[in-house]
Amino acid sequence: MSDLAERAARLDADDPLADRRDLFDLDDGVIYLDGNSLGALPRHVPARVADVLTRQWGRMRIRSWTEGGWWDAPERIGERIAPLIGAAPGHVVVGDSTSVNVFRAVISALRMTPGRTEILVDATTFPTDGYIAASAARLAGATVRAVHPAEVSGALSGDTAVALLNHVDYRSGRLHDMGTLTDAVHEAGARVVWDLSHSAGALPVDIGSHNVDFAVGCTYKYLNGGPGAPAFFAIRPDLLPRLDQPLGGWCSHRDPFAMDTEYVAADGIAKARAGTPEIVSLLTLDAALDVWDGVDLRQLRAKSLALTEFFVDCVNQLAPAARSVTPAGEDRGSQVSLSCVDAERVMAELVARGVVGDHRPPDLLRFGFTPLYTRFADALRAAEILGEILA
Amino acid sequence: MSDLAERAARLDADDPLADRRDLFDLDDGVIYLDGNSLGALPRHVPARVADVLTRQWGRMRIRSWTEGGWWDAPERIGERIAPLIGAAPGHVVVGDSTSVNVFRAVISALRMTPGRTEILVDATTFPTDGYIAASAARLAGATVRAVHPAEVSGALSGDTAVALLNHVDYRSGRLHDMGTLTDAVHEAGARVVWDLSHSAGALPVDIGSHNVDFAVGCTYKYLNGGPGAPAFFAIRPDLLPRLDQPLGGWCSHRDPFAMDTEYVAADGIAKARAGTPEIVSLLTLDAALDVWDGVDLRQLRAKSLALTEFFVDCVNQLAPAARSVTPAGEDRGSQVSLSCVDAERVMAELVARGVVGDHRPPDLLRFGFTPLYTRFADALRAAEILGEILA
Repeated sequence: MSDLAERAARLDADDPLADRRDLFDLDDGVIYLDGNSLGALPRHVPARVADVLTRQWGRMRIRSWTEGGWWDAPERIGERIAPLIGAAPGHVVVGDSTSVNVFRAVISALRMTPGRTEILVDATTFPTDGYIAASAARLAGATVRAVHPAEVSGALSGDTAVALLNHVDYRSGRLHDMGTLTDAVHEAGARVVWDLSHSAGALPVDIGSHNVDFAVGCTYKYLNGGPGAPAFFAIRPDLLPRLDQPLGGWCSHRDPFAMDTEYVAADGIAKARAGTPEIVSLLTLDAALDVWDGVDLRQLRAKSLALTEFFVDCVNQLAPAARSVTPAGEDRGSQVSLSCVDAERVMAELVARGVVGDHRPPDLLRFGFTPLYTRFADALRAAEILGEILA
Repeated sequence: MSDLAERAARLDADDPLADRRDLFDLDDGVIYLDGNSLGALPRHVPARVADVLTRQWGRMRIRSWTEGGWWDAPERIGERIAPLIGAAPGHVVVGDSTSVNVFRAVISALRMTPGRTEILVDATTFPTDGYIAASAARLAGATVRAVHPAEVSGALSGDTAVALLNHVDYRSGRLHDMGTLTDAVHEAGARVVWDLSHSAGALPVDIGSHNVDFAVGCTYKYLNGGPGAPAFFAIRPDLLPRLDQPLGGWCSHRDPFAMDTEYVAADGIAKARAGTPEIVSLLTLDAALDVWDGVDLRQLRAKSLALTEFFVDCVNQLAPAARSVTPAGEDRGSQVSLSCVDAERVMAELVARGVVGDHRPPDLLRFGFTPLYTRFADALRAAEILGEILA
């Protein structure tokens, strides 16, 4: 047994989260390192969704809205996500896409900073955040400036209304310092919106202790909520009474079934809702979140860092033609991005050989390490196959 | 056998759509007259969704985006809805809620009518449309005026940018004249947005021949797409190149996987998308739409009118304390609303006795007649039980 194989065996044997893997359907032998794009299926989800369809929809029908827990599903599921991102209870709601929630957050933040007209956007952001910020700016008479996260502090000014930042860079896997950046934005008198799409479920996030104003993120990556699962929206408790969002619909009304012609926002986090919630997708997510029951997020982080560090060591030994562009240690999310020649073809060969990551143009191979179901042995085998392909 | 029972038996025997009922799970003996709120479950849907979860998500995982038909599901499902609303192929897309799509349509319409600042909103609208129009107006520097549909023509002026109208009044069940109203709006140089939530799947809609600019609507009522199923957005073909919507995200970009920082809208109807589509809800709807294969919408309309007329006849004879407030004949959608004393309690008793409609404050009992699965015998039995309760 090689040193690396011995190390993998020891790390897997000592992994306190090892039993979580059995909760997922990964029986096909694929080494799935794309949970940062689409989390794997928790085994129990199909039976739960079958109940949603056959009993709740099929038999209870309309009564499920009131008697079956459909109406308040957005808030109830938000309550389950709150501890995963460090949000206060009652201040997270789930629904719509991340794009729509970025729009909701940016417009709301602009309305809290009257007289200021500039939106700072993380220049390394996943593109949709920048597109939506530009659209929000156009509607609100603001402007957008793209700045690298390292330059945010220097770019803040008395005209900065809001900074829209990604917690983890989707390309490089770099984890940004939420506390320092949030403090800097607040010192400038601006609001911050954090996109947690690549950190929620990948590591402990604590928007509460960092006084984050708004946070949004998707639930289909490390939270395993299913393809296109609804996004979350979180707000700092003292800001909730002032929340003035642009998509208030009948489901965010104080008294939805009074069918008033006048809009009056709900008091609680329901005021961040809009239209009828996407129940089948929401309850798929609700079921999927069961895999988090009892998980210690410090153990999750420790395993994630050990997994990615081990993978980089394996790559350095077995596939030296690929080079990690992901920072080490605490500056790393839960992915490793490797730069190599002919990356698109290399990823296609990896997939053909049962190692699933993804490719980001021009030269990156991305590998997500989902601590709930990825084994150290998987990391080693992926590096071995990559080495064979690159050799 | 009473005259009404004989009439019901004859009408059911002659119903060319009678066999469609078997496609739905209605085996519990409930008389379900709430398909105008939540359509019943088509029997085949759970098996299809199980495949989405276990095979497409569980085994193909990320590959389903490209190889499994997930990526273009919004356009593909829009293509199936197009003939039901008379839209041109390639000009309908499905995703987000009706509220979000109203926002998308109203902002887009305002941008097509520069210099005009007034939004006319149907004063009888389902409330969310009015709330969203007010929010869009606030962002765009426009104003909202609520006018009764009968007064729209007189209210139009050179300052009218857009009229937001409901095809069927959700309370009274009145069907508005799409052709006449659309012509009037166009003569005033304005754009029209029709909300088809209560007509799509209830009767033949023909936005194409009426030159409708924008149409939106939900898919969980007469289209039976499941609770909170995604909404559709349709646009007139000659307006698509000019569409400039406020929620353009990565999924409406011309080249989504290039991950450009600059937003360039797609050429086709994909430009009306936003973020990652809600796949589980979308593919639930996709499966549900199979019940429309081969349906003749003229037969659907004929049955709907016969059903609602028969129900009103039954109520007049058997439950005369209730009074229909729904217009007769061609001015009727596919629902009947009855005004009666103590309506909320009466509906609760109806539900307890297995007749499910709903109550709209203060005095209305609403009954939806879904032509695909409601029998004339159901209409009679509902009226009989209502008569017993009111006696």
